[in-house]
Amino acid sequence: MSLRIVLVRTKNSANIGSAARAMKNFGVAELYLVSPRCSLDRQAYALASHAGDLLEAAKTVGTLEEALTGIRHAAGTTARERASEAVRAASARVGVKQLPAGKSAIVFGPEDTGLTNSELDRCQLAIHIPTASYASLNLAQAVNVLCYEWFQANLAPAGEADSGPAPVPDGQVATREKFEGMIRHLMDTLLYIGYTEPHQAQGIEHLYRRVFDRAQLTDREVAALRGLWAQTRWAAEQPPERVPGGRESR
Amino acid sequence: MSLRIVLVRTKNSANIGSAARAMKNFGVAELYLVSPRCSLDRQAYALASHAGDLLEAAKTVGTLEEALTGIRHAAGTTARERASEAVRAASARVGVKQLPAGKSAIVFGPEDTGLTNSELDRCQLAIHIPTASYASLNLAQAVNVLCYEWFQANLAPAGEADSGPAPVPDGQVATREKFEGMIRHLMDTLLYIGYTEPHQAQGIEHLYRRVFDRAQLTDREVAALRGLWAQTRWAAEQPPERVPGGRESR
Repeated sequence: MSLRIVLVRTKNSANIGSAARAMKNFGVAELYLVSPRCSLDRQAYALASHAGDLLEAAKTVGTLEEALTGIRHAAGTTARERASEAVRAASARVGVKQLPAGKSAIVFGPEDTGLTNSELDRCQLAIHIPTASYASLNLAQAVNVLCYEWFQANLAPAGEADSGPAPVPDGQVATREKFEGMIRHLMDTLLYIGYTEPHQAQGIEHLYRRVFDRAQLTDREVAALRGLWAQTRWAAEQPPERVPGGRESR
Repeated sequence: MSLRIVLVRTKNSANIGSAARAMKNFGVAELYLVSPRCSLDRQAYALASHAGDLLEAAKTVGTLEEALTGIRHAAGTTARERASEAVRAASARVGVKQLPAGKSAIVFGPEDTGLTNSELDRCQLAIHIPTASYASLNLAQAVNVLCYEWFQANLAPAGEADSGPAPVPDGQVATREKFEGMIRHLMDTLLYIGYTEPHQAQGIEHLYRRVFDRAQLTDREVAALRGLWAQTRWAAEQPPERVPGGRESR
């Protein structure tokens, strides 16, 4: 399972360093530089941070064809939605999913001009990162987004990839009978302290049911709430000076 | 349709500049800086590129609470998969989808330490960007990935967003400052009635924050809860026989 990142005629060593850092974060290790217009200087290593090893292992070659040696699927990136008059570029997410897990490469052009049409033609697929109007994606940011998509598609821990909304509470939702017991306890308490009166109690109960149902309470939280209702009643039953806050304010 | 990016105690102005560029690329315009440890210098503007206007419009504030004024849904980012012992962070894609299109914020901590637990607690949701092992995501790269996901979820041209799970319905969730006011009122009340003591209050506050954050309270529900805390205190301040329940049982 590997992906090769190919940077063509890159001008700014900082971009190579930042690209390496992004690659490493998302488990992408292979870096090819086609006729770079800068050297891997201190700035590149500083921005690579913990990914200096990727820079050391980077292969510098003279042509895109050499950089694609051994690759079966190559995608070229483009700032245009249409890679050519004929070809519409795939969006980042869709395009990355079309790259098989092995022997694939993503090719990025120079900061100033992007890939030429003939370079794009050397790839099976053109990929465009959708952006707002007037956008100008930095090279390293583009590498970051596509490596992130690659990681999502191929390597993200199971369950973190695409699927559904995370259950906000960690499972363990209290049983309905515990929930009902807590609601009865709440309503008794509300009547006791005069928060509501019997003829209005139904609307109030409805409101609190909705709040606590949405919260998907755990056993521990149900117990905490029952503790609160019990303490509320206890405090109402005491002479004010026996309640902690009343005692302290005397 | 808007998203607010909140950067907390950022150290390096280059990161603020790169973050602004990433934001602009993905149609995100609102930037808040909480107690930045750097100034918006030439480096910041150089890296912001065409997004200098975002830096000019950035609001600098002293606390996270100020930065969340007017926000209904706040997500805090964390480098850990578990935001706390109890809470699992949502992955980037899933988490961003849970933020409604309006009045949402994503909060990023300092480069060196990330958000504190109490700062994460001030958000409804923790978001973690899945990465390979030994990864270290740069602050600007993290902003880039989450703004990209936001754009995919909300603004990408039709057909380019993936057809994922529907976002949580954008009800009339109360603003964060109303929520914080309710929590302070709750904690004062809990201390007053002796439900908790100052040295344990933090754990209790954490538990209730989780419950009420998951409940996604509306303005009306926040008002109902504040009414309950007020009535609880009133009942504790009265002689028992003046409390409705005490009166009736005599």
